[in-house]
Amino acid sequence: MRALVFGAAGFVGKHLTEHLQGAGDTVYLAGIRTSGTPVENEFAVDITDAAAVRRVIQEVEPDTVYHLAGIAFVPEAEGDFDRVLSINVGGTAHIIRECHELNARVNFVFASSAEVYGAINAADLPVTESAPARPKNNYSASKQMAELIVERYAREGRVQCSIARPFNHIGPGQEPRFVASNFALQLARIARGEAAPIIRVGNLEARRDFSDVRDIVRAYRLLSTSSGGTFNLGSGKAYSIQYLLDVLIGISGVEVTLETDPERMRGPEVAEVYTSLDKVQSLCGWSPVIPLERSLEDVYRCWFDRLASE
Amino acid sequence: MRALVFGAAGFVGKHLTEHLQGAGDTVYLAGIRTSGTPVENEFAVDITDAAAVRRVIQEVEPDTVYHLAGIAFVPEAEGDFDRVLSINVGGTAHIIRECHELNARVNFVFASSAEVYGAINAADLPVTESAPARPKNNYSASKQMAELIVERYAREGRVQCSIARPFNHIGPGQEPRFVASNFALQLARIARGEAAPIIRVGNLEARRDFSDVRDIVRAYRLLSTSSGGTFNLGSGKAYSIQYLLDVLIGISGVEVTLETDPERMRGPEVAEVYTSLDKVQSLCGWSPVIPLERSLEDVYRCWFDRLASE
Repeated sequence: MRALVFGAAGFVGKHLTEHLQGAGDTVYLAGIRTSGTPVENEFAVDITDAAAVRRVIQEVEPDTVYHLAGIAFVPEAEGDFDRVLSINVGGTAHIIRECHELNARVNFVFASSAEVYGAINAADLPVTESAPARPKNNYSASKQMAELIVERYAREGRVQCSIARPFNHIGPGQEPRFVASNFALQLARIARGEAAPIIRVGNLEARRDFSDVRDIVRAYRLLSTSSGGTFNLGSGKAYSIQYLLDVLIGISGVEVTLETDPERMRGPEVAEVYTSLDKVQSLCGWSPVIPLERSLEDVYRCWFDRLASE
Repeated sequence: MRALVFGAAGFVGKHLTEHLQGAGDTVYLAGIRTSGTPVENEFAVDITDAAAVRRVIQEVEPDTVYHLAGIAFVPEAEGDFDRVLSINVGGTAHIIRECHELNARVNFVFASSAEVYGAINAADLPVTESAPARPKNNYSASKQMAELIVERYAREGRVQCSIARPFNHIGPGQEPRFVASNFALQLARIARGEAAPIIRVGNLEARRDFSDVRDIVRAYRLLSTSSGGTFNLGSGKAYSIQYLLDVLIGISGVEVTLETDPERMRGPEVAEVYTSLDKVQSLCGWSPVIPLERSLEDVYRCWFDRLASE
């Protein structure tokens, strides 16, 4: 398979690239960020530039396009809606339109987000794909809009489109502005004697569906050969942030004091979220296999080793 | 009422302004096009400019905002999605965000379009507001996205939001790229001896829901004081394009030959479309009152008089 990954240099993109290469695909990397050194099969492309997107898709002639590019952090997206619109929605339109224009039928996998569900009611758990999309911020609104673009071209029938709605996914290499990575970095610094044994925390009560990024990217490849549609991806279980922290503290072996950081205490949150896996299991044969504790261990080790090598 | 109209210089905007003034509202006009001469209460504002939108809304402090601005012609929207996105979606986001930021509760009426329904199945007639939105072109996709932005702020509760989904509406002053206005202009030229008695036509079989723009703008004002939500607006009846043409030919009193224009023969179309009026009738007390034949007469007279004064 000739696989073209937009957003290849990001957290998920790197894991996806590794997985696709391991599965024997010929992988072409595209994105605004590149590895810095010239790498074979790598294209520096800003997806807001329609002509640049056209060039790379026409040159690669991919069998499968994975679209992971865009602004992925909610607070960043909140700041500038025009930019989010241009990147997350306009960029998606550029990519899928070029896939649509290719002569061959392309499989297209779009990484949307479970954020599109917005505020989830307890009565709606586990969350299925038929739950209404009710975005509550710019990021999730942009993902919903990008989904609409994908669905429009899906209806035209020339691109085989799958939309993934992953819930929280963690793993080595994730930026420390996300909660598990953040805790792990703080603990690794403490364990190395680089910081006082104090962990700054936000709301620890919220229960979220955490899965491993390596399970998620495995699902993306399975989705690419599915019959299309929208799929929730997650663990199917809810874990409290407190639980993540407790496991990470146990892994680090340090004793810490918790300190509430007002900046991390978000506003009224949904108490609990977890997904149904029925659709993706039955139609794509995917289930997550990596236990959360293993993911957290790897996240911690990644930070510890990185600090050690600095 | 202090009413602020975005897109005031457009076809619908002019009719809305006239209706609001007639109803006693103090009307503020905003838009990228202005009347050309300085007019009281008129603001030249490009809605893609967030700061400019902020200034006019903060200065006017409206009770009600009518948002009619944007690219309204399907083929124009098809050409440049980035531009459509920036104007129709980004512009909407700028306007409603500023309404949301005002201290007072603002009534917001967004002119979306029945185009969001896309291809309508015969079994789904008459079209109700619960029919799925399945945009099939850039214009309708942009309208659906703009609706999502409006719905997001509606959920936050600080703006009273109504979304109008008008079906085809006609009336004096409509640009001649729309079908009824186009026929009327051709016939007026023939009647004045300025053109040969040949009418170029496209597909005459399609049956569409045509109403009068003056009924539509009356609905907009009623929507502004409704409890919010999404409302189809139309005549509730389907008229063939052939019927419109026949009525216009009768009004003009000329004898013509029809000539098929391949450029006007659009691709596979939906045979028949007409809306349910149940929701808007029961919740807003609105029904259209102007007969189609009267609308067509006014459209024809408008062109005839304009040609005469040139």
